[in-house]
Amino acid sequence: MARPDTARPIGVFDSGLGGLTVLRALHQRLPGEDIIYFGDTARVPYGTKGAGTVQAFAWQDARFLVNLGVKMVVVACNTASAFALDDLTDRLDLPVLGVIEPGVAAALDVSRSGPVGVIGTRGTITSGRYQEGLARRFEPAQILARPCPLFVPLAEEGLIDHRLTTLACAEYLTELRDAGVDTLILGCTHYPLLKPAIADFMGPDVRLVDSAETLAAAAADRLEAAGLLQKQDNAGRLDFYLSDIPWTFTEVGARFLGRAIDEVHTVNLDELEGAGRLDLSRKGDET
Amino acid sequence: MARPDTARPIGVFDSGLGGLTVLRALHQRLPGEDIIYFGDTARVPYGTKGAGTVQAFAWQDARFLVNLGVKMVVVACNTASAFALDDLTDRLDLPVLGVIEPGVAAALDVSRSGPVGVIGTRGTITSGRYQEGLARRFEPAQILARPCPLFVPLAEEGLIDHRLTTLACAEYLTELRDAGVDTLILGCTHYPLLKPAIADFMGPDVRLVDSAETLAAAAADRLEAAGLLQKQDNAGRLDFYLSDIPWTFTEVGARFLGRAIDEVHTVNLDELEGAGRLDLSRKGDET
Repeated sequence: MARPDTARPIGVFDSGLGGLTVLRALHQRLPGEDIIYFGDTARVPYGTKGAGTVQAFAWQDARFLVNLGVKMVVVACNTASAFALDDLTDRLDLPVLGVIEPGVAAALDVSRSGPVGVIGTRGTITSGRYQEGLARRFEPAQILARPCPLFVPLAEEGLIDHRLTTLACAEYLTELRDAGVDTLILGCTHYPLLKPAIADFMGPDVRLVDSAETLAAAAADRLEAAGLLQKQDNAGRLDFYLSDIPWTFTEVGARFLGRAIDEVHTVNLDELEGAGRLDLSRKGDET
Repeated sequence: MARPDTARPIGVFDSGLGGLTVLRALHQRLPGEDIIYFGDTARVPYGTKGAGTVQAFAWQDARFLVNLGVKMVVVACNTASAFALDDLTDRLDLPVLGVIEPGVAAALDVSRSGPVGVIGTRGTITSGRYQEGLARRFEPAQILARPCPLFVPLAEEGLIDHRLTTLACAEYLTELRDAGVDTLILGCTHYPLLKPAIADFMGPDVRLVDSAETLAAAAADRLEAAGLLQKQDNAGRLDFYLSDIPWTFTEVGARFLGRAIDEVHTVNLDELEGAGRLDLSRKGDET
């Protein structure tokens, strides 16, 4: 018997493990939903790579999830959201959510008078997507955007409370702090791990926005609007797929997710692609 | 008419742009040789990723070069040398050189009495390959190995003479300095860029070994022994292939190579693989 659409899982993908912060927020907001997480750890990071490469990767990642029968695709990676969200939305026949729009909405909501700062990977900042969103209310001079390339390796190395992170904050954030931003968007799913150091540097008056919670609320709204919400008595199951098990996986995965990850499936997207197993014509075969 | 084997290019691959330091040494030592460089910038870095993933990537990278008709494959990436050199040597019907053995040989040559230090990616250090090589002369207690995961992003960000790099040196190298190593192997092709900061921290009595020059000498020996040396009056041509053009390519590429890179071909290995164009049966078709 076909599985009803409401019972299908939500699919979440990210370039690596940073998106586990988004998975965590989604699971807290929607504990009844089954969620499949795919982290492209074999090709992480996306944030330093060109737009076309990120688009091609995201298209493969999304098709992997679609072939597992998901009812919605969440792009947990900011860089992939910046470069591939429109493309995925056009090409896929199911709801696709990125993290940038919820982050913008949250910033517009909490900022009192601006200016607003946004930090992210080189790719995300170069794309200008956050800046475009913020331009709905702010003048260009009120929007300060800054790539912070070392924040991803610092978070992945677990240097949360470390003098290297303190120094990197001074390096990247001094200009934003001196400009008096009242709100700072953490425009990369790795950055919430560094929140204590960032908050400490920016001071108590600056509100830090990460899109995970806003995205979870948006996902709930979209599912409800589409009649796709899971029955509330379900105990949501989380499944983890990665394209590589990095050396730091156990430690870093637990740090991002907030608990240990018991079981992980490893997948080779290129082999699946070569075998035709990412073709969209297969979509939903397994129902 | 078939191209004589001596006229074929040397193939060099790396996870990204770090291997350009090796290309540079090869070109200086063998200015008559044509050299093809492939940097897997779409999937860089390799150093954080698991052994099986690195092996699969290296096998694809090497076949790409073999299909361009190279007479020798140089694995310029330490992590790929650590995990894939034996495999490539077994499977390919042409000379394959890695950077670890030349690095070990150079360290054994310059160290007076030890202890000897080796730094590299998490993958390279975990593999134990440098430690095995050094064990030919040194006791385990005389060999100090340490992964320095932030050195790759610091080099790629161009933070050569920067307080973050100074602090990272203190973080990673204090133990090695305090143990009195007389020689330190820079076991990652990115690290030579950070040589000034590393040398400054370690002090004037510690010899820094990078394998680029030793490898170039070894490559010359291997080509000569195999009767594969190019005629000396040839003006060696360098060709560059990358799987992605990263945002920082122009600046970082020039820094690693020591001069600007005029022309780059971008290639998608997965598409080539899917089209059967990495098959070894095609090897030499173009001669």
